[in-house]
Amino acid sequence: MADAVSTQERTVPARIGDSEFDRDTAVTRREPGVYDIDLSAGWTIINAVNGGYLLAVLGRALADALPHADPFTVSAHYLTASTPGPAVIRTETVRTGRTLSTGTASLFQYAEDGTEVERIRVLASYGDLDALPDDVRTTATPPALPPIDQCFGAGDAPEGAPPVPGSSAITGRLDLKLDPSTLGWALGAPSGKGEMRAWFGLADGRDADPLSLLLAVDALPPTAFEMGLKGWVPTVELTVHVRTRPAPGPLRVSITTRNLAGGFLEEDAEVWDSADRLVAQSRQLARVRLG
Amino acid sequence: MADAVSTQERTVPARIGDSEFDRDTAVTRREPGVYDIDLSAGWTIINAVNGGYLLAVLGRALADALPHADPFTVSAHYLTASTPGPAVIRTETVRTGRTLSTGTASLFQYAEDGTEVERIRVLASYGDLDALPDDVRTTATPPALPPIDQCFGAGDAPEGAPPVPGSSAITGRLDLKLDPSTLGWALGAPSGKGEMRAWFGLADGRDADPLSLLLAVDALPPTAFEMGLKGWVPTVELTVHVRTRPAPGPLRVSITTRNLAGGFLEEDAEVWDSADRLVAQSRQLARVRLG
Repeated sequence: MADAVSTQERTVPARIGDSEFDRDTAVTRREPGVYDIDLSAGWTIINAVNGGYLLAVLGRALADALPHADPFTVSAHYLTASTPGPAVIRTETVRTGRTLSTGTASLFQYAEDGTEVERIRVLASYGDLDALPDDVRTTATPPALPPIDQCFGAGDAPEGAPPVPGSSAITGRLDLKLDPSTLGWALGAPSGKGEMRAWFGLADGRDADPLSLLLAVDALPPTAFEMGLKGWVPTVELTVHVRTRPAPGPLRVSITTRNLAGGFLEEDAEVWDSADRLVAQSRQLARVRLG
Repeated sequence: MADAVSTQERTVPARIGDSEFDRDTAVTRREPGVYDIDLSAGWTIINAVNGGYLLAVLGRALADALPHADPFTVSAHYLTASTPGPAVIRTETVRTGRTLSTGTASLFQYAEDGTEVERIRVLASYGDLDALPDDVRTTATPPALPPIDQCFGAGDAPEGAPPVPGSSAITGRLDLKLDPSTLGWALGAPSGKGEMRAWFGLADGRDADPLSLLLAVDALPPTAFEMGLKGWVPTVELTVHVRTRPAPGPLRVSITTRNLAGGFLEEDAEVWDSADRLVAQSRQLARVRLG
């Protein structure tokens, strides 16, 4: 499909700063701390605007509003469902420090009577990833993913299989290749395990940066699908830690759910870069409708 | 020491609502959404006010300010170091929904010239834990902890061993018994693993509730100690999910660090109750000074 074709036909990859992702997350400063954006319909799943895209939009506004440019830890509480179209982002600088700055950002859209309706509230601390020492002590290991050519995208549904759910506009923006061992849900045979793994890239070949990591942590199908649950899994809250600047090349994203209880579950995401570094960690609390 | 003795001599356990924890986290409403509190010196580690105690104080203010009483997901960004003494908490109700409400809370203390200095900013969503369905699907298993009488508290340092670091005022408020296998740091022989496990209770016998879980997730010694690092490990951001109301009896807390990089590490905490239910999950991003 569109993304697969464009991926194969791509000759010159898009560059950071000049790509679909950069254009669709660009914010316009209306006044200090206040930004306008037209939320793109290109990052929707069915009718919903992807939560990772929205996080990247808010992250870009804060990168401009705060004295530090890189998100270190970003907590987002999703209030109401966003729709493609105009939105305004209002930021507040909470504290400015030497190595970290903290701020809030709220994204509002407009009701029919013109009143503002808040969609998302974010609280974040920013810093300078390039100023961090190189020390790494980790026991974390990259997810076991088959080679990218043995994984499956939205355009690769096996003969006779139903199209992969979530084959929405966003699939044309992403180069997402799912681990076959977490793709059972798409074939009507979910594994029952709360796991989802994929190779992640942007369809136009733009490499990852700290802002696109905010998209990557919420771009895979819900683990609930592999747990045999159907239907929408709305995010209540998502916190992401960006741990280092990602190297060029495809990312590997692994998402795990261990505990579903009371109609809520957590999704823990890890993002690894081509240099085998853990570049981001996230956890979200989401609601599930029990089928 | 004091806490061990009081624990042993205890005859009638304190009740939820009438305990050291409840008295020391009680806030006084100055006006709608604004609360005064005198931060207790009883919850300090060396000179620092414990971050979990502060989170519980802010959590109690939000429980009063929001229409829902139970914290579901609370994200706190720690801005400046709090000290025992007067503080004011200013809350904002962001959204009121049927099942969830979202609000912010800021804790301020006073500079010498009387100006307010913000210590912590919190963004949280609250609900009603008792209104959740009973369904549980989990692959999470309780931490492997020895029986409580085979674990060690601040008063149980072996003969000739140095007193357990962090033997500060808070040790008199907590009934914390550390897993010997994560206590090597206290004997000068850290395991090198980013693990810390303990039985957790309040010294006066008060059972756990959702608010005290906010304390429990940040009450153990830093995993960095078992990784052979010394010195203070200040929290930058901590997010906790309360998943169900804890049953009476001691809690088990397990904290894991997998990735230390660039002078930051994550601490993932799990809290289990006496009914073997995962009652809370948290993750914090903290700074480490590399020794």
